[in-house]
Amino acid sequence: MAGSSNLSFVLHKPNHVSFEERPVPKLASPHDVLVAVNYTGICGSDVHYWLHGAIGHFVVKDPMVLGHESAGTVVEVGSAVTTLKKGDRIALEPGYPCRRCGDCLSGRYNLCHQMVFAATPPYDGTLTGFWVAPFDFCYKLPDNVSLQEGALIEPLAVAVHIVRQARVQPGQSVVVMGAGPVGLLCAAVAASFGATKVVSVDIVQAKLDFARAFAATHTYLSQRVPPEENARKLIAAADLGPGADVVIDASGAEPSIQASLHVVRMGGTYVQGGMGKSDINFPIMALCLKEVTAKGSFRYGSGDYKLAIDLVAAGKVDVKKLINGVVAFKDAEEAFKKVKEGQVIKILIAGPNEKVENGLNTSVDEAKLKEAQAAGSTGGCC
Amino acid sequence: MAGSSNLSFVLHKPNHVSFEERPVPKLASPHDVLVAVNYTGICGSDVHYWLHGAIGHFVVKDPMVLGHESAGTVVEVGSAVTTLKKGDRIALEPGYPCRRCGDCLSGRYNLCHQMVFAATPPYDGTLTGFWVAPFDFCYKLPDNVSLQEGALIEPLAVAVHIVRQARVQPGQSVVVMGAGPVGLLCAAVAASFGATKVVSVDIVQAKLDFARAFAATHTYLSQRVPPEENARKLIAAADLGPGADVVIDASGAEPSIQASLHVVRMGGTYVQGGMGKSDINFPIMALCLKEVTAKGSFRYGSGDYKLAIDLVAAGKVDVKKLINGVVAFKDAEEAFKKVKEGQVIKILIAGPNEKVENGLNTSVDEAKLKEAQAAGSTGGCC
Amino acid sequence: MAGSSNLSFVLHKPNHVSFEERPVPKLASPHDVLVAVNYTGICGSDVHYWLHGAIGHFVVKDPMVLGHESAGTVVEVGSAVTTLKKGDRIALEPGYPCRRCGDCLSGRYNLCHQMVFAATPPYDGTLTGFWVAPFDFCYKLPDNVSLQEGALIEPLAVAVHIVRQARVQPGQSVVVMGAGPVGLLCAAVAASFGATKVVSVDIVQAKLDFARAFAATHTYLSQRVPPEENARKLIAAADLGPGADVVIDASGAEPSIQASLHVVRMGGTYVQGGMGKSDINFPIMALCLKEVTAKGSFRYGSGDYKLAIDLVAAGKVDVKKLINGVVAFKDAEEAFKKVKEGQVIKILIAGPNEKVENGLNTSVDEAKLKEAQAAGSTGGCC
Amino acid sequence: MAGSSNLSFVLHKPNHVSFEERPVPKLASPHDVLVAVNYTGICGSDVHYWLHGAIGHFVVKDPMVLGHESAGTVVEVGSAVTTLKKGDRIALEPGYPCRRCGDCLSGRYNLCHQMVFAATPPYDGTLTGFWVAPFDFCYKLPDNVSLQEGALIEPLAVAVHIVRQARVQPGQSVVVMGAGPVGLLCAAVAASFGATKVVSVDIVQAKLDFARAFAATHTYLSQRVPPEENARKLIAAADLGPGADVVIDASGAEPSIQASLHVVRMGGTYVQGGMGKSDINFPIMALCLKEVTAKGSFRYGSGDYKLAIDLVAAGKVDVKKLINGVVAFKDAEEAFKKVKEGQVIKILIAGPNEKVENGLNTSVDEAKLKEAQAAGSTGGCC
Repeated sequence: MAGSSNLSFVLHKPNHVSFEERPVPKLASPHDVLVAVNYTGICGSDVHYWLHGAIGHFVVKDPMVLGHESAGTVVEVGSAVTTLKKGDRIALEPGYPCRRCGDCLSGRYNLCHQMVFAATPPYDGTLTGFWVAPFDFCYKLPDNVSLQEGALIEPLAVAVHIVRQARVQPGQSVVVMGAGPVGLLCAAVAASFGATKVVSVDIVQAKLDFARAFAATHTYLSQRVPPEENARKLIAAADLGPGADVVIDASGAEPSIQASLHVVRMGGTYVQGGMGKSDINFPIMALCLKEVTAKGSFRYGSGDYKLAIDLVAAGKVDVKKLINGVVAFKDAEEAFKKVKEGQVIKILIAGPNEKVENGLNTSVDEAKLKEAQAAGSTGGCC
Repeated sequence: MAGSSNLSFVLHKPNHVSFEERPVPKLASPHDVLVAVNYTGICGSDVHYWLHGAIGHFVVKDPMVLGHESAGTVVEVGSAVTTLKKGDRIALEPGYPCRRCGDCLSGRYNLCHQMVFAATPPYDGTLTGFWVAPFDFCYKLPDNVSLQEGALIEPLAVAVHIVRQARVQPGQSVVVMGAGPVGLLCAAVAASFGATKVVSVDIVQAKLDFARAFAATHTYLSQRVPPEENARKLIAAADLGPGADVVIDASGAEPSIQASLHVVRMGGTYVQGGMGKSDINFPIMALCLKEVTAKGSFRYGSGDYKLAIDLVAAGKVDVKKLINGVVAFKDAEEAFKKVKEGQVIKILIAGPNEKVENGLNTSVDEAKLKEAQAAGSTGGCC
Repeated sequence: MAGSSNLSFVLHKPNHVSFEERPVPKLASPHDVLVAVNYTGICGSDVHYWLHGAIGHFVVKDPMVLGHESAGTVVEVGSAVTTLKKGDRIALEPGYPCRRCGDCLSGRYNLCHQMVFAATPPYDGTLTGFWVAPFDFCYKLPDNVSLQEGALIEPLAVAVHIVRQARVQPGQSVVVMGAGPVGLLCAAVAASFGATKVVSVDIVQAKLDFARAFAATHTYLSQRVPPEENARKLIAAADLGPGADVVIDASGAEPSIQASLHVVRMGGTYVQGGMGKSDINFPIMALCLKEVTAKGSFRYGSGDYKLAIDLVAAGKVDVKKLINGVVAFKDAEEAFKKVKEGQVIKILIAGPNEKVENGLNTSVDEAKLKEAQAAGSTGGCC
Repeated sequence: MAGSSNLSFVLHKPNHVSFEERPVPKLASPHDVLVAVNYTGICGSDVHYWLHGAIGHFVVKDPMVLGHESAGTVVEVGSAVTTLKKGDRIALEPGYPCRRCGDCLSGRYNLCHQMVFAATPPYDGTLTGFWVAPFDFCYKLPDNVSLQEGALIEPLAVAVHIVRQARVQPGQSVVVMGAGPVGLLCAAVAASFGATKVVSVDIVQAKLDFARAFAATHTYLSQRVPPEENARKLIAAADLGPGADVVIDASGAEPSIQASLHVVRMGGTYVQGGMGKSDINFPIMALCLKEVTAKGSFRYGSGDYKLAIDLVAAGKVDVKKLINGVVAFKDAEEAFKKVKEGQVIKILIAGPNEKVENGLNTSVDEAKLKEAQAAGSTGGCC
């Protein structure tokens, strides 16, 4: 990578972005590292901010750089850094906790109330040339993991966290609602945890076909029937006996969540990994009488990035298959449009100092995916 | 206890009961024990069957003896029984699992699909003279625990199971929604587990006053405001900082459940212990983004009866305070009416061979409790 | 399988066995199943009883049929059995708990004090023609798992239990001391649980070569040096950084156990799976100051057989590779001698009604394995 | 407290200490707090360094201030500190982890390899006038907890950590080997966690008498017999049935540890909390065959200080009873001698700016405790 541009992709208000050349940031602590950003993926939350300027209580009031799914190359290390050196290729964990509250000290830093998270207002994101991060949130990539794969570590860490929240055990059956990027990755992670049955569920057959080729042992095309009926059909289709050991919702869709509680077996676990409406109609007595353990999953925490990289390095999750193409930094807005239109699973934006050789390459069937997008199916999101 | 009547209190259809003299049952296995029933409490589910003839999928089709909260005296033991002898005073666990399915073998027998549970159709209950049970579901009462207290072990075991599902740890703050029998017992059990703050919540001040005297360190009178506002006020009133470590819903009421998710802190635990509507409006994103662990609780399982008895024997939970009176077997229907009318917390029905000396004694303020009943507040139930 | 011989292989006193035609057993309960035994493996404990007549407190006083690692075919089912039918091929779990004690009811039936375990005095074993077992301890083999593989489910279940006790998580490093049958299976199970580094350790290079081909990612030839030095060298050889996440001892050898505590990282887990001397010199302060979690592992319990079969069916553990040959029932003593001499990993004895087509086939290098046996290395054992 | 002396109690080599007036330390970070030390207890490790100049690998090479069990008063706060203010009375957690390694980020900071721990070479301790600490390791004392009690929070946190490692549950039986300060506190904490049976074990009757009055429900005078026999007698004496649910060794003595493994029930838990010889003769097969979970416990971690203070504030652990007296700073060496001679349980040394009103007051029977000291019994230690 040549060049020292710190060009940044800045959101001003809904649907209004610009490119700005900003000063290269300085190390703020001897524990910091300066990273040149090579590739950045686009998350559903980036697109949501771009389109709506807010997610729940988080409102973009001042201009904000977008992006938080990045891999980069170390260009400078602080005086206290011993584990990284200039030239190291890294995956970038984009949220920095306070390290001092009860949640941080007890190992749940993703719950830190003072979290500084990239591209979550008021904090800038990583669609920029250079980025400063504490060394312990920069994870060196093994030789057999590329920088493009490195940009997929963030969504994979989301999936790792979800599957860990679900405590998936070898031999279990796992149903994953939603076959967007996070749903696909949850299916692959669950399989790598030893699940013997992994059922992907979606409302678009094309996505299920991809899921089956990617990681799922079974698929189920969700139907427009009452949730209990959908659950019964799903259980029958995948031969789940008394129900699934684990159900992960990576869709955020109300009917999927409702069905989840009817698909999970007595004493089983359901994890809510996808974002959607704040309040929904929910089968609370199914949770109570079946003694279901339900858990939320929020971003990622201790050990998740490390395991995500291990899974890619060991060949257990092939994230390359999710990358439909790479665009130059100047084409960032174009890439956002592709994601919005549901034409791609993952598209990467090269850093402003990065040459792009392979352009966009939508290997998936665009027509079918447009159908998916039209149907309103979305993947889970951090 | 003298006499050998096996008079039974039989439900035929809604609001229609009778007394029938039935044959004394025989031991069915060398592991069985014959028990003369001394006292039986009335559970919300008994009243519900009496009034409606069904709970969910469980429908009373044939005449069914009511009752399942009993203590008794051993009158005969099978040839393989070594841990009990004639004359032993016991608390009676009223549900018998298959011992052979995956749930039984893995220690979660309360989830057994073949459970035979007293007074759950089609199985008869314990409002009768004599009862046969496997010896390992009969728990000998220590000398300092009376048979009347023994009849309270069943609802106390429900509360023990709920508090265990919540994994209450010493030093934690616990909010209990609902101050009916199970809510009160949950508060007391949580305190015995070392919770330093126990907040009882109800819509009737009289019940809160009782809860405060019984076990709670704080109380909160729930208000008719949106759940998030109610939660904020509750948190402020009990000085819960970032929220409660644990919230137990023992009410089954929709507004209470909604508030529960807003009262619990990030990373905290919420357990649904009370029964109510099958489906409710539920703040699913609060569960997701706060990484709440939500659990159902169903009846009781391994170790719960034993711990319930230990807590009473050690003086940590004074179940006597919940007993408003004891009626003779012939007055069973009268007792059901008292419970239905919300005039009592717990009323015991003496076995048909038992003399009753102390009659009904409603020490709680009837007027206030009627108000509660009118308001639709109910305690949780197995 | 034709024939109805119930010929049994009976141990009378050390080194004294006989073949006896005994009556075919009858079903003792409607939940029982009668099984024709097809194949039985030989466990180290069988050999130990054969040679010494006792293991610890368990002393063979009366003639006892040997064997407990069996697969068979259902020939009769009791009236209450619904999950099995005549002709089903099954793996046989050979220990039957009381189902009524606190350990059984809490899901830890392997700890039951009243366990009736095959070929553990005074109970007969499975080197016989027919066997009666409760249906829930007979596990149907999928079509793609052979009866010979089925006889390996028992030692695989031992390994599954050990690895579960160790709570091996995806991405962890696991060191297995001992490359006998159980050590090899532990390595394979750990890999199937997602361990990214699996280090087999032994004192015989030939066994390590086999382990590397079978499941291990790394091997270490244990040296006759002090345990801390051995540990340092092992850690360096396998690049374990601050130590292994998990260490499993499947050797029972004092130096291995000592090294285990020095190999495990701070906060790591060590499981004792192999049997050996009752008391050894032990680095207790390493356990204390590193906050190691140490666990014993005893036989197998809830879910272990099921998972063992799943692992074979899914192709994750190829137990066939451990089978060096099959001998006819009449050659059972010969097979015991082969095991004693360390010439085989696993040898199967066909049931008395079973034809044997493939004879003994020691594909491993006999000379090298004799060397192992001479060196006193033994695999862990139930 | 008046005065601004930073007089420090410095160890130069074994048995050679001095008082030095050192400069008052400065805040090193905006998150730091300057604390005037009011009271400091003496730990076994302090005495060990004083007598021997080393503990294991930790060797005093340069002069080192002793002491780490302190409470103090905030005199200055850094610019980023919002939770403490001048004048706040605090308990001082004396070890500061790196906050950046895998152990820190996963919530086990006590295992941090870069821990800076007071009075552990090469780091100075708290027997000094003023101390700088990060704000999150200073715990505000409630109004009803005195500064003298505050100095006992450190050993109480040690006990809390041990009991948490043991996962003591309500209703369990807990045996504590050793009735020194940490053993006594473990007994009290176990009781506060709901243990219904708490058995203190020691070789000195006077210490057992104290333990019985302090927290234990039973005591057992350990005998000079083989460990299995001692265990049988202990189990019989305390009526522990199949053994204790939990055994905590707070003695570090080889015979106690050996007996621990024979006292614990099948499937039970044993925690090593006391320090002693590096290697001992250990009943490894008892651990294996009984599936014991054995754990080390090292210092304290997330939440332990907070819970320790809660327990004192709630009146559940009365640490005042352990304080035999308070001496002026100038008498620090005298106090060390008293501890060495076993004449006291806990003695506090006032800070150099603190007035002492109540002198030494050995309420326990000195003669009996000398006997204890002669017998070599020591309490557990961090």
